[in-house]
Amino acid sequence: MPLPFDGAISAFYQTAPDSVRDAIGGRDAKRIITAGYPYDTRMNKKEYEATLQALQHELVRLQADVQATGKRLVVLFEGRDAAGKGGAIERFRQNMNPRVARTVALPAPTERQQRQWYFQRYVSELPAGGEIVLFDRSWYNRAVVEKVFGYTTDADRARFFDQVVPFEKMLVDDGIILVKIWLTVGRAEQLRRFLDREADPLKQWKLSRIDVEGLSRWDAYTDAIEETFNRTHSHHAPWTVIRADDKRRARIAAIRAVLSHVDYEGRDADLAAVPDPAISGGPDIWAPDRHA
Amino acid sequence: MPLPFDGAISAFYQTAPDSVRDAIGGRDAKRIITAGYPYDTRMNKKEYEATLQALQHELVRLQADVQATGKRLVVLFEGRDAAGKGGAIERFRQNMNPRVARTVALPAPTERQQRQWYFQRYVSELPAGGEIVLFDRSWYNRAVVEKVFGYTTDADRARFFDQVVPFEKMLVDDGIILVKIWLTVGRAEQLRRFLDREADPLKQWKLSRIDVEGLSRWDAYTDAIEETFNRTHSHHAPWTVIRADDKRRARIAAIRAVLSHVDYEGRDADLAAVPDPAISGGPDIWAPDRHA
Amino acid sequence: MPLPFDGAISAFYQTAPDSVRDAIGGRDAKRIITAGYPYDTRMNKKEYEATLQALQHELVRLQADVQATGKRLVVLFEGRDAAGKGGAIERFRQNMNPRVARTVALPAPTERQQRQWYFQRYVSELPAGGEIVLFDRSWYNRAVVEKVFGYTTDADRARFFDQVVPFEKMLVDDGIILVKIWLTVGRAEQLRRFLDREADPLKQWKLSRIDVEGLSRWDAYTDAIEETFNRTHSHHAPWTVIRADDKRRARIAAIRAVLSHVDYEGRDADLAAVPDPAISGGPDIWAPDRHA
Amino acid sequence: MPLPFDGAISAFYQTAPDSVRDAIGGRDAKRIITAGYPYDTRMNKKEYEATLQALQHELVRLQADVQATGKRLVVLFEGRDAAGKGGAIERFRQNMNPRVARTVALPAPTERQQRQWYFQRYVSELPAGGEIVLFDRSWYNRAVVEKVFGYTTDADRARFFDQVVPFEKMLVDDGIILVKIWLTVGRAEQLRRFLDREADPLKQWKLSRIDVEGLSRWDAYTDAIEETFNRTHSHHAPWTVIRADDKRRARIAAIRAVLSHVDYEGRDADLAAVPDPAISGGPDIWAPDRHA
Ligand SMILES: Nc1ncnc2c1ncn2[C@@H]1O[C@H](COP(=O)(O)OP(=O)(O)O)[C@@H](O)[C@H]1O
Ligand SMILES: Nc1ncnc2c1ncn2[C@@H]1O[C@H](COP(=O)(O)OP(=O)(O)O)[C@@H](O)[C@H]1O
Ligand SMILES: Nc1ncnc2c1ncn2[C@@H]1O[C@H](COP(=O)(O)OP(=O)(O)O)[C@@H](O)[C@H]1O
Ligand SMILES: Nc1ncnc2c1ncn2[C@@H]1O[C@H](COP(=O)(O)O)[C@@H](O)[C@H]1O
Repeated sequence: MPLPFDGAISAFYQTAPDSVRDAIGGRDAKRIITAGYPYDTRMNKKEYEATLQALQHELVRLQADVQATGKRLVVLFEGRDAAGKGGAIERFRQNMNPRVARTVALPAPTERQQRQWYFQRYVSELPAGGEIVLFDRSWYNRAVVEKVFGYTTDADRARFFDQVVPFEKMLVDDGIILVKIWLTVGRAEQLRRFLDREADPLKQWKLSRIDVEGLSRWDAYTDAIEETFNRTHSHHAPWTVIRADDKRRARIAAIRAVLSHVDYEGRDADLAAVPDPAISGGPDIWAPDRHA
Repeated sequence: MPLPFDGAISAFYQTAPDSVRDAIGGRDAKRIITAGYPYDTRMNKKEYEATLQALQHELVRLQADVQATGKRLVVLFEGRDAAGKGGAIERFRQNMNPRVARTVALPAPTERQQRQWYFQRYVSELPAGGEIVLFDRSWYNRAVVEKVFGYTTDADRARFFDQVVPFEKMLVDDGIILVKIWLTVGRAEQLRRFLDREADPLKQWKLSRIDVEGLSRWDAYTDAIEETFNRTHSHHAPWTVIRADDKRRARIAAIRAVLSHVDYEGRDADLAAVPDPAISGGPDIWAPDRHA
Repeated sequence: MPLPFDGAISAFYQTAPDSVRDAIGGRDAKRIITAGYPYDTRMNKKEYEATLQALQHELVRLQADVQATGKRLVVLFEGRDAAGKGGAIERFRQNMNPRVARTVALPAPTERQQRQWYFQRYVSELPAGGEIVLFDRSWYNRAVVEKVFGYTTDADRARFFDQVVPFEKMLVDDGIILVKIWLTVGRAEQLRRFLDREADPLKQWKLSRIDVEGLSRWDAYTDAIEETFNRTHSHHAPWTVIRADDKRRARIAAIRAVLSHVDYEGRDADLAAVPDPAISGGPDIWAPDRHA
Repeated sequence: MPLPFDGAISAFYQTAPDSVRDAIGGRDAKRIITAGYPYDTRMNKKEYEATLQALQHELVRLQADVQATGKRLVVLFEGRDAAGKGGAIERFRQNMNPRVARTVALPAPTERQQRQWYFQRYVSELPAGGEIVLFDRSWYNRAVVEKVFGYTTDADRARFFDQVVPFEKMLVDDGIILVKIWLTVGRAEQLRRFLDREADPLKQWKLSRIDVEGLSRWDAYTDAIEETFNRTHSHHAPWTVIRADDKRRARIAAIRAVLSHVDYEGRDADLAAVPDPAISGGPDIWAPDRHA
């Protein structure tokens, strides 16, 4: 079977910095390969599954409360390609009512949308009372991917930064509960995941031209992300940054980040605890140059 | 033919303050009956028609520029019932391309919309580049009519006031040209128009329950409007208040307010002049207790 | 002042068939120049205005009934460029409530809309109970203008014809009142109107590239229209064809076509009579080669 | 922990027909309890997982083809409550791109939607070229649940039946690939699943008032479903009925039903084979009175 993008990922691997290739090494799936990650191996499966189930159970409580009280909940999932946004969202929604919690994964804007207020098409997707919306990527596209790939002008991006804080403040002041989650992965880990995707027919669709070309733009991404944190980690709508080099711990942390953010009936304080501070916190958790 | 609302308007007239009834007097249509209005009679028809035509001509230039440069223009028409919003909009649009300039007159919100961010359904109607949107009533419903009729809670209205200035600033910063026009009429003039509507089968549909019940809420309206000006006459999005006791002069002033606000190719400085300062300006032009 | 499209209309006039140029002749605005039109001159202004007012009055009754009974009314206005669609719609709406009766004039489809079911974006605009929608051009674009300008493939257009009759039947069976109005003008009259538009700064915006290029495609239009009538003049949703060489008579006929189609409370049988059979009827009224 | 709906499910169980209670018996999860089901026990886990993975792999091929060729794919998932619609959809989407394949689970219609053409809100959700839409319940709500619960009038439902066949034919003629899947479960199996949901905090949200009250309306459902098959199993848009008493086999059959319906590049004939005829076929597979 031919590799997607003519094997561009494998080819890149050959030319990757030594540190990155060394880290990937034998590719023992259980080993965490990101420098400075506080755990050596990924979370044990049993513990993961038990915890996940308990948390999903708690999400059902949250969902019941959202419906009963008419809350509106918005969760943004952001992060570099292969950081694990989609997988985290799946675990989040797995046991929820699709008529209550829906995922929004907008395609690239149409030509007409490009002539509109940038936030307009996102505003149309905001939840009504009693609803939960999970954004798989969000308005932060303009801050990061559009910058790195030149899909926006500097002026438009500057305007985005001017608007996004008051925009989010407005939503929050309106009573919308807004949780912004940034999943971060190390460079070697990202490449490892891309290699897996390249080799796995079930996952190849996940590879896009943007992923492939993004490989050589790691630093441009880093700059764009740093600026994004500096400009948008606001009091009203702070980022929860989660080191996602271990997908399991990251998913658990992401759900906790939401649960601990919302005040719902019957909340279990242990389950809805703040996520593990060793891998989760504010932008200070983020270490752009982490290892390779 | 039975009068609409069982003749509630005529009945109100009987009980109206003397000053109001005296002002309405013989109902000479040409005479301006509002105290302090700077002209005695309405604008001469010939002059009106010639000026209107020249201004519409100029609007065609503006329209061409909007299309050519991708500008986005939003004009809000606000004012008490019978202030002349609809008529002003008609004259504005009369010679414009319906595929470029469209009127938005939203119905009362659905139950689901009531559970959404208040601005959400208005945001969906904002123009893309190259388009003009004329709002016949707008988000200011919450500030005035919803207040007067108890369709909003004090908390929701307070939130509206907190949000509307940054909301409009965001649109303006984004490059949307926003013109907010407030048409104001005296109390006797409003009643005179209602009486006309009541008697004229072609206009009876314009009378709603809200108009009829609003008659006895003049002062509540006044308070709500005053507060609205105080809170929303911002630097970025100021109000143009137009004394609309003479519909003809008001329409001319409204078009001028827009033309003078936009910088378009081929603008004729005389036509696109600021509207007649005797009847138009900021909220200071507004004299709430003027009526008789 | 430079003429739009570099004077392409005037230039065309110079090369037009003699019969067309002779017909336009001295351009006495009052004279009807279309062969076989049953009146020599346009309707007398006084009579026009009185009749129009009475009909608008009747439309207000219709509107009240639509609101009271929850009817849904859709009126399509179709016809060649300059046939008078926009003007007829204006007179129709002039005294109606913009929150009840709205005009829909869709722009050219976006790239994404082109990948959707052709009727999809029109379906989104259909009225809810108690509403009236006036389409300024409609789904018939595919049958005529898209054909003449090559914006559709033959296969897509064939599919359109297969679908449109059952589509309209579905709407009608659902209780939507559907009135399809085709305004037809002679070739010389169309050119006369284009010449007026070219010369009148207030109307120049009405001229589009499609109008200009359409001039030399009169016969292609004729073929496309003929086929459209043959395929879509159905029992459930017949066309009302109106000879619109006299705009005044045409507007009156268009309003009558609607009034006589709807069964509303308080209908005045004289006003809501079928439109003048001398200028209005089914597709047989249409005479494609009429021009001089 | 209190049971949802005050334990209405358990209470119903006590009063259920003997045959139903006997069938549920000891609740050995592996045993199939529906009379006449062609397998005694559910599919072996290993086989299930291997097959599912191979099929998801094949779905990725289908997805690639949909994107490359601009196909539009609509899959309706219908069936009684607890038939397994949501679970089947999850497996379907699990490895697909959320920007390509999206689930649509519409809430109950708003008051305004109730005044619109019944199909209108569904039409808005149809895919553009290159997209896949999975409907979790669909326009068939009117045929079944709305009938059983009196949410529609007989006249509206009759109109639905008149329209749905031509409506679907229109979509299919337009090139939309429409797959209609009906998951059917026996009465005892349904009750067993409800009992599980009642007892499992992770699943309790799945129980709605409609489920609870539906328990005693089994026969009304049966009648409504039978009529639905009789009226809507058309040549253009046939039903695939799947006996879903074993969820695993049902999910596999559902994916196969889609794969075998679409002609995509690289199709593996073995994987995209028609689903197991022992549990899947047309409405004849459906045995309404099966229950014990
Ligand atoms: N031309 C473009 N302009 C703006 N955004 C784009 C453009 N092309 C792609 N994007 C956006 O970039 C993001 C990343 O794209 P991609 O990696 O293909 O998707 P995903 O992350 O879903 O796999 C998406 O949100 C996509 O909408
Ligand atoms: N590329 C295109 N594809 C499909 N339709 C188009 C395209 N360009 C223009 N049209 C349609 O052709 C019709 C006639 O265009 P035009 O003469 O410019 O508008 P109008 O009749 O409003 O003056 C419009 O409905 C427009 O949407
Ligand atoms: N008042 C109503 N009118 C029409 N449909 C309704 C109404 N109430 C519920 N429904 C529909 O009945 C279906 C079944 O409802 P429910 O069992 O609560 O949902 P689900 O099957 O998603 O668990 C849903 O599609 C819902 O939209
Ligand atoms: N129940 C309501 N809630 C909010 N706004 C309303 C309500 N009823 C009427 N309005 C608004 O009040 C304004 C005046 O109403 P009317 O005079 O009936 O056109 C319109 O913009 C309506 O949308």
